[in-house]
Amino acid sequence: MTNGNGGAGGTRGKAIKCKAAVAWGPRVPLSLEEVEVAPPGPLEVRVKVLLTSICHTDLSAWKGENKVHRKYPRILGHEAAGVVESVGEGVEGLAPGDHVVPIFTGECEKCVYCKSDKTNLCGTYRVDPFKTTMVHDNGTRFSVVDRQSGVRQPVFHFLNTSTFTEYTVLDAACAVKISPKAPLEKMCLLSCGITTGVGAAWNSADVSAGSTVAVFGLGVVGLAVAEGARLRGAARIIGVDVNPAKFTKGKEMGVTDFVDSKACDKPVHEVISEMTDGGVDYSFECTGINDVLREAFLSTHDGWGLTVMLGIHSTPKMVPLHPMELYGRRIIGCVFGDFKGKSQLPDFVDKCVNGEVNINFDGFITHKMPFSDINKAFQLLEEGKSLRCLLNL
Amino acid sequence: MTNGNGGAGGTRGKAIKCKAAVAWGPRVPLSLEEVEVAPPGPLEVRVKVLLTSICHTDLSAWKGENKVHRKYPRILGHEAAGVVESVGEGVEGLAPGDHVVPIFTGECEKCVYCKSDKTNLCGTYRVDPFKTTMVHDNGTRFSVVDRQSGVRQPVFHFLNTSTFTEYTVLDAACAVKISPKAPLEKMCLLSCGITTGVGAAWNSADVSAGSTVAVFGLGVVGLAVAEGARLRGAARIIGVDVNPAKFTKGKEMGVTDFVDSKACDKPVHEVISEMTDGGVDYSFECTGINDVLREAFLSTHDGWGLTVMLGIHSTPKMVPLHPMELYGRRIIGCVFGDFKGKSQLPDFVDKCVNGEVNINFDGFITHKMPFSDINKAFQLLEEGKSLRCLLNL
Repeated sequence: MTNGNGGAGGTRGKAIKCKAAVAWGPRVPLSLEEVEVAPPGPLEVRVKVLLTSICHTDLSAWKGENKVHRKYPRILGHEAAGVVESVGEGVEGLAPGDHVVPIFTGECEKCVYCKSDKTNLCGTYRVDPFKTTMVHDNGTRFSVVDRQSGVRQPVFHFLNTSTFTEYTVLDAACAVKISPKAPLEKMCLLSCGITTGVGAAWNSADVSAGSTVAVFGLGVVGLAVAEGARLRGAARIIGVDVNPAKFTKGKEMGVTDFVDSKACDKPVHEVISEMTDGGVDYSFECTGINDVLREAFLSTHDGWGLTVMLGIHSTPKMVPLHPMELYGRRIIGCVFGDFKGKSQLPDFVDKCVNGEVNINFDGFITHKMPFSDINKAFQLLEEGKSLRCLLNL
Repeated sequence: MTNGNGGAGGTRGKAIKCKAAVAWGPRVPLSLEEVEVAPPGPLEVRVKVLLTSICHTDLSAWKGENKVHRKYPRILGHEAAGVVESVGEGVEGLAPGDHVVPIFTGECEKCVYCKSDKTNLCGTYRVDPFKTTMVHDNGTRFSVVDRQSGVRQPVFHFLNTSTFTEYTVLDAACAVKISPKAPLEKMCLLSCGITTGVGAAWNSADVSAGSTVAVFGLGVVGLAVAEGARLRGAARIIGVDVNPAKFTKGKEMGVTDFVDSKACDKPVHEVISEMTDGGVDYSFECTGINDVLREAFLSTHDGWGLTVMLGIHSTPKMVPLHPMELYGRRIIGCVFGDFKGKSQLPDFVDKCVNGEVNINFDGFITHKMPFSDINKAFQLLEEGKSLRCLLNL
């Protein structure tokens, strides 16, 4: 393994050999391999990953739940924090030594999408589950020697990030420079889960003080929504989950009321309607389950209810609503909390550092392990025993 | 027939006998009958209707297309202008002689809905196609003698309005006092069609100058959307219809481009995407047809596209979109152009009167007839030969 802060005299311009957790097939335990990480191409940066955590999207990808994900060998992982090792041609605003957080949905800051204030989906670097190579040349920056054949072969990228590796190559549009004062352990969680949830409450829904909120699914994203709603001064935050074991953590994190959807003798939306005199002002769907989406929608108050969809719907089922039901309630989708990563995340980080925004990062970090224990961390997440497990590289 | 401006010495407090066009069954020609119109109950007003016009919703109701509509005898009609004849107990802000426009979706100005700035759907007086009686006592204010049995029987109300009659009774929440300077012939059209379309462009979509717009269905509502978009300075307004005969009128009304959806050899959204380099900024669905709704949605530009739904979907078909399609495009429903009728329509009227808002009312009025020709007017609308036919009472 090479030293990350190599700069001009070190690793710059050369391939780096390092450890990565390679996925070879659905549910095959990740294999710690020596991979070769090519130097960054034009508009790319190579990053030494210091911390990574695991999100449900990594778990789904590892399981191969979608055909989309079945591309091997591949380096998964998309929530991380690290330091720039070197930058490719044409990169502006990033230099070796910069602290960065990778983002799975990039921002080129130049296209019509990035120039619009109505979307955070970049025309070139937005999240794309089908993408397995780099934009510049459709190639990969990772390679590994197949143990059986002895042949070096490309390793595919994942969600613009691939963070289960000591070094990764990112499009500069997917690497956000943050304050060196920010603690990287916490910032790692801004790479996906916390930003998505808090942003959904702040940017997408614009939750107001005194309002009522229902959160469907109390994983990291759901709890981050609750955190965002709490910081906005929501009067009630109702957590809904099939697993009441999650309510203990929810209570710690500021969720005020709980609905165990499996224990209800009527539809959840009726229960919530009764609890709130007609429904909540905002609901957040964090499970990606179609029937839950309908319940979340109907749980809002007729007239002004707003449902924010955050889940990934992998089945072909259509939106479970009748067109006439859209008169009086609204539903919108939200990616990465509607934050524009490059231009808005640094300010969010600064506010977390200077105390202006008081997010309970530690509440989300339930486990810490060395990178080599990554398969154990996957197991904990799958069993619903962890929120975020930080892996130290 | 009694004099409408009777005031204290005239008709006030007494039943009025007058002519009304009564619907006795699906597609049965409306029958001009002498009806008795009771005095207004508490929080109600009796209005002398001076002008009424016919909208597609009246046509659908007359045809009995929905089970909802099959309640007879009934007085249809919801677009009108008139003068208050007398007011019931507790009515504030309305007096005999006031010029009024009926609204099918009322505003009590007191409930939580009316106090919210996020909806124009009143908790009590919102539009309700199932409603056939008055709120106060669940009774009707109209009665007629059945010609065959000789028995007097109640005549049901329609859409909070029932304007196909010389006198009608409205909830005060459904009667908007407008400036006496406003020409009633034009104001009649603010009762439904023009307000709905212009408001969809202004309030619901907030169409911006220089933007691109697609309007699906070039009836009155669609043309009113175009009018709203034109007044906002939209750069291109694309009209889509199955009937190219509507394009001549559309051109007169400021629609800039046309798509004959029946003549397309590919989906309409692909045609529009090619015309606009990726899609329009806003689309408006004015047909109530599910497949058209999907085309309208996909016709908008990915990232920031917004579809406003105005049509009435009477089939049980669900929203024809996949949940993941809601990431990057938005869809919302809009009733009465998101105008709060009582509190916002008078200002809109004033702006039309003082020239601040320059709506081409005359462009919408294609025919004028005496009230007694109402069945002829229905026929013209059904054959697609009229936009608005004004009936003089």
